[in-house]
Amino acid sequence: MEKKSSLPPPVLIPELGHLFYTLGWMTGTGGGISIREGDTIFVTPSGIQKERLTPSDLFLLDFHTRSILKAPTLPVQPSACTPLFYHCFQLRDAGACIHTHSQNALLVTLIYPGPTFTITNQEMIKGIRRGTHGPGLANTDTLVVPIIENAPTEEDLSDGLTQAMSEYPDTCAILVRNHGVFVWGATWEKAKTMTECYDYLFEVAIKMKQLGMDPHC
Amino acid sequence: MEKKSSLPPPVLIPELGHLFYTLGWMTGTGGGISIREGDTIFVTPSGIQKERLTPSDLFLLDFHTRSILKAPTLPVQPSACTPLFYHCFQLRDAGACIHTHSQNALLVTLIYPGPTFTITNQEMIKGIRRGTHGPGLANTDTLVVPIIENAPTEEDLSDGLTQAMSEYPDTCAILVRNHGVFVWGATWEKAKTMTECYDYLFEVAIKMKQLGMDPHC
Amino acid sequence: MEKKSSLPPPVLIPELGHLFYTLGWMTGTGGGISIREGDTIFVTPSGIQKERLTPSDLFLLDFHTRSILKAPTLPVQPSACTPLFYHCFQLRDAGACIHTHSQNALLVTLIYPGPTFTITNQEMIKGIRRGTHGPGLANTDTLVVPIIENAPTEEDLSDGLTQAMSEYPDTCAILVRNHGVFVWGATWEKAKTMTECYDYLFEVAIKMKQLGMDPHC
Amino acid sequence: MEKKSSLPPPVLIPELGHLFYTLGWMTGTGGGISIREGDTIFVTPSGIQKERLTPSDLFLLDFHTRSILKAPTLPVQPSACTPLFYHCFQLRDAGACIHTHSQNALLVTLIYPGPTFTITNQEMIKGIRRGTHGPGLANTDTLVVPIIENAPTEEDLSDGLTQAMSEYPDTCAILVRNHGVFVWGATWEKAKTMTECYDYLFEVAIKMKQLGMDPHC
Repeated sequence: MEKKSSLPPPVLIPELGHLFYTLGWMTGTGGGISIREGDTIFVTPSGIQKERLTPSDLFLLDFHTRSILKAPTLPVQPSACTPLFYHCFQLRDAGACIHTHSQNALLVTLIYPGPTFTITNQEMIKGIRRGTHGPGLANTDTLVVPIIENAPTEEDLSDGLTQAMSEYPDTCAILVRNHGVFVWGATWEKAKTMTECYDYLFEVAIKMKQLGMDPHC
Repeated sequence: MEKKSSLPPPVLIPELGHLFYTLGWMTGTGGGISIREGDTIFVTPSGIQKERLTPSDLFLLDFHTRSILKAPTLPVQPSACTPLFYHCFQLRDAGACIHTHSQNALLVTLIYPGPTFTITNQEMIKGIRRGTHGPGLANTDTLVVPIIENAPTEEDLSDGLTQAMSEYPDTCAILVRNHGVFVWGATWEKAKTMTECYDYLFEVAIKMKQLGMDPHC
Repeated sequence: MEKKSSLPPPVLIPELGHLFYTLGWMTGTGGGISIREGDTIFVTPSGIQKERLTPSDLFLLDFHTRSILKAPTLPVQPSACTPLFYHCFQLRDAGACIHTHSQNALLVTLIYPGPTFTITNQEMIKGIRRGTHGPGLANTDTLVVPIIENAPTEEDLSDGLTQAMSEYPDTCAILVRNHGVFVWGATWEKAKTMTECYDYLFEVAIKMKQLGMDPHC
Repeated sequence: MEKKSSLPPPVLIPELGHLFYTLGWMTGTGGGISIREGDTIFVTPSGIQKERLTPSDLFLLDFHTRSILKAPTLPVQPSACTPLFYHCFQLRDAGACIHTHSQNALLVTLIYPGPTFTITNQEMIKGIRRGTHGPGLANTDTLVVPIIENAPTEEDLSDGLTQAMSEYPDTCAILVRNHGVFVWGATWEKAKTMTECYDYLFEVAIKMKQLGMDPHC
């Protein structure tokens, strides 16, 4: 069901970086993108403006050894999220991971002070899969997204992330309180369009709360 | 009164898909576009990113037999909305139909829990026609848009849609609760600009409610 | 103090139409733009998508006789606002007029139910002139924008507009309730940047009201 | 850690002007940008549309004498903010300064009526430096941004700005009530990405207030 992408990751990732900047998901150098192609992991560099990425700015890492196969000529490091992206690739068989600092993601972690975001009876829930390779949810299913607490560094999120992955085997996203969200999918198209669906549902939940309604029912 | 479009549907539809994605109406592969040209129906494929459509991604269907005249090389299906688009073409003599997942459309179905959205005394009401081929409404007319309940699949919306078309012969749009809106017009320009007018009026109604005002008067 | 524009009006107006569509000021074919160059008035056609205008879509009218010097090949009429634009050119010596359906303009006419919008102590007030050719206002001045009531057709706004021009000789803008705003300036740059300043101030006033604050002080 | 920019300031500044216009930070000719390169200061002209800047519109000033090395052919003046930009260059060793009229900046000065904006426990705080050349803050640090009162002209802000710089040696930004914000950094990338982080945090604080939450804790 997917369009064969003619774009190799070094071309595609800068294009997505520009789009996600425009959507307000990756401003101030925030966020990150990683795509797996066979045994190669492509990952954005740390601290670089996402809307100005070029193909030569990306890191290529080995899927098995995590060693750097190719580094930019800039004095930069791979995204601080790299260990988290590897959890998505290795524990959930993802083909791509996206980490955004979307304000919608941040704000739902505030209006849902507990360990999960939930919403039901929304058409866009059908855009989310049950696990990386599962079927789409029904619009009447309750979408559950675990929320983990923020930590000083991205690496410190590692335990929280793997624990949430283990407790919520059906989820394709994990929210980080006061921070943002990680979304993964079997392909970059799935990861990207599910990030859009999740963000849409976060935004709808916020607007419903503002209008005095309950997104749970 | 209309500009002769120099763009054939296979060029125009991807252009509109890109625009509607930017407006937040077709993110996460949501929504769909269909244009009739003589006996040919052009329709977007299901599950494909709307801002990345190319001319070769579109389906061409026969207006009378609904058989596929031309399919993309991708392993995709025509939009799940295709039966609904056909209702617009056959029951309302539309030249084009647009289905959006606009959050404004979704939210008005929540602040209007009954069977219709209504608004009056707004200039932009003049951009809406009384039926597919009728004259424009007056700004002092009350615009009425029927709201039907959502269903598990787009096809399950068929009965609700045809019933609303029959009960509200003057409408050029039908809202679907927790989902979005279908808008049709005599030409693609009419369908597209009326979608803009409807969406504008939905947004104004939401903002008026938030400011404690009543869009009905 | 102004950049000599190298763009003739037939090139500039479509460019502005595209920008203003993007800002949400001219969706659904709403709004209009008119520029005077010597004895020639350039004006947008009625009912045409503003983001898709081309140079050949514009009308050229004679400043003195109002007769059509050049018409598009399309079967279209000059903007229904043309008589109102002429008031700006003839009564206020404007070089350009812009009419938007900005939701900010519409909403301030609702939260200010009286005959004027007022705001003070805002930096952006300094971007507004005292009359078409006057000096800029001070940030501590109170900006006053008259609000006239809407009418069935644009032409029916004529009396209200001229009366407001006469009662408020310092204004460069007139709001129309439930409709939008007319802004004029000595040049297209002044008209365009003042439209931006007015719209910014309308938006700030709405946000202040939502936060429980008073834009008057 | 920074990408070697291949863009000289006369090319870069118009590009940033266009971007910042799109973000709503520099509409109506508001705001300004200045970059230092060795002993040369590049600064935007006053009263010119920021999204239409061209390389030849910029002023080049001498860092030491403040004399004009190169002026546009237009009859324009350097940005009225130029003396304030010099404070950033000379008192804080900045490499670039950005002044926006962002509505988020304006609105936080209203919901924080005291002399500072503060926020804590947000991931994006990590994008802000402790002083022009210091390390990044921790997400659990409290970000403090001084707010000075507005004045009739930009030059009248000079005393307030230098006093705030002296009282808050760690800050890289100063808010101006009912006006906007000044942000500086060691390089244009730092100034630009920190402006994004500050603006993001201002916006989050406003949304938290609207949702009845306290951004201080």
